Amino acid sequence: MNWEHDVTLRETERIDDLLTHNLKIIQSHEVFCFSMDAVLLGRFASVPHRGRVVDLCTGNGAIPLIMSTRSGEAVFHGIEIQERLYDMACRSVKLNGLEERIKLVHGDVKEAVKLFGHGQFDLITCNPPYMPDNGGEKNENIHKRLARHEVLLNLEDVIRVSSQLAKNGGKIAIVHRATRLIEIISLMRTYGIEPKRLRFVHPRKDAEPNMMLIEGIRGGKPELRIQPPLIVYDHGEVYCEELQEIYYGKRDSLT
Amino acid sequence: MNWEHDVTLRETERIDDLLTHNLKIIQSHEVFCFSMDAVLLGRFASVPHRGRVVDLCTGNGAIPLIMSTRSGEAVFHGIEIQERLYDMACRSVKLNGLEERIKLVHGDVKEAVKLFGHGQFDLITCNPPYMPDNGGEKNENIHKRLARHEVLLNLEDVIRVSSQLAKNGGKIAIVHRATRLIEIISLMRTYGIEPKRLRFVHPRKDAEPNMMLIEGIRGGKPELRIQPPLIVYDHGEVYCEELQEIYYGKRDSLT
Repeated sequence: MNWEHDVTLRETERIDDLLTHNLKIIQSHEVFCFSMDAVLLGRFASVPHRGRVVDLCTGNGAIPLIMSTRSGEAVFHGIEIQERLYDMACRSVKLNGLEERIKLVHGDVKEAVKLFGHGQFDLITCNPPYMPDNGGEKNENIHKRLARHEVLLNLEDVIRVSSQLAKNGGKIAIVHRATRLIEIISLMRTYGIEPKRLRFVHPRKDAEPNMMLIEGIRGGKPELRIQPPLIVYDHGEVYCEELQEIYYGKRDSLT
Repeated sequence: MNWEHDVTLRETERIDDLLTHNLKIIQSHEVFCFSMDAVLLGRFASVPHRGRVVDLCTGNGAIPLIMSTRSGEAVFHGIEIQERLYDMACRSVKLNGLEERIKLVHGDVKEAVKLFGHGQFDLITCNPPYMPDNGGEKNENIHKRLARHEVLLNLEDVIRVSSQLAKNGGKIAIVHRATRLIEIISLMRTYGIEPKRLRFVHPRKDAEPNMMLIEGIRGGKPELRIQPPLIVYDHGEVYCEELQEIYYGKRDSLT
């Protein structure tokens, strides 16, 4: 199957709608599909109008695709260690004709400073693997396992590398499990990133948060702003108004 | 004016209802009135059935009075540096006939370990002064100034002393401004207290939190549970259901 920008789909792949600015994205339920977490991070991060942005563990590229709609002139980089996902992301960028705005690299985040150099970015984003590598669930699909478990990259790697990549005053935005709040705050401070903005995501208004969005500034002054709770479902299975607006592109940002 | 337990009121004082278990409390708008923060902390803390509890900066004693209704046999201590407030608190305890359950001390929290000894408490609570002592607002009423500003006691003092007073495995519950989250978490960990439970208080569901309730365990294992947001007002000036239940004693705890 061909698309207007001459992109070939591989087995099990499909083209989905990112529901904003007519963006399309290649996905496969057997390999990788972006999650709500990616959409929220793409809307939460303080995307600069100009400058350089890099998304670590970019997967099929959903986060740079979404962020590209929020900036006039910034250039978005993405790095992904799994060749299969990198390949999907490259074709999604081509599909949308965004090769000039989004530059992808196939590589290891732990080598990102060698690839990109120190202190070159205004914003670093990351939707990293959430789960500690406990060695369990070995029979899980390898693509999903590497994306979900800290097999190749752990939280400290993500934060250390982010700090090295950021300009002084540059921002680092991460989505992660709410249970890891203290670890993230501690690591950010260890690596010179001051947490500045925090938003918890609750499935319902009377539920504990299952996710958090956090943004810090390299070399920033201590002052954390905690934002209103982001409630996913209003009643039953209906998204709350803010989330609907985010998903359908009526609202640009969660900032 | 006399009450059933023969308590004399001083000028500007009045007897208010704590709205639970027929408890009464002596207050004065010119000296000290307990706030919603005190009620929330008294309901949030994990009050043991037995054992020893101490409330630091106890003011007019609202927190031990509320906590005493949540425990069968625990003994509650309170320490207050302002003699005027200590005196109000003593009369409130007497007014309620709770002299056997609530023991108050007039003294400096920084001297509490000398008074009570190391590692003697199952729970330490504190609703400390919230505001850094910036030297401003010198013409504020001295009682209110000492209760609100870190003139005599700062956050680090509170957490250091709490850690010293707690048994290993004992709990420390604090209410504070949400903006000081990171400082509180860092100080808790510095003094061997692991944050275990955190709840943000938002004036409305779409507002940033202005307060937080946090409880840690001395020597606890890292695992922070973040609870659902506590929303104060549902619509306009009407308290949300959970808060009404807390205020009117229909719900025992915020845990």
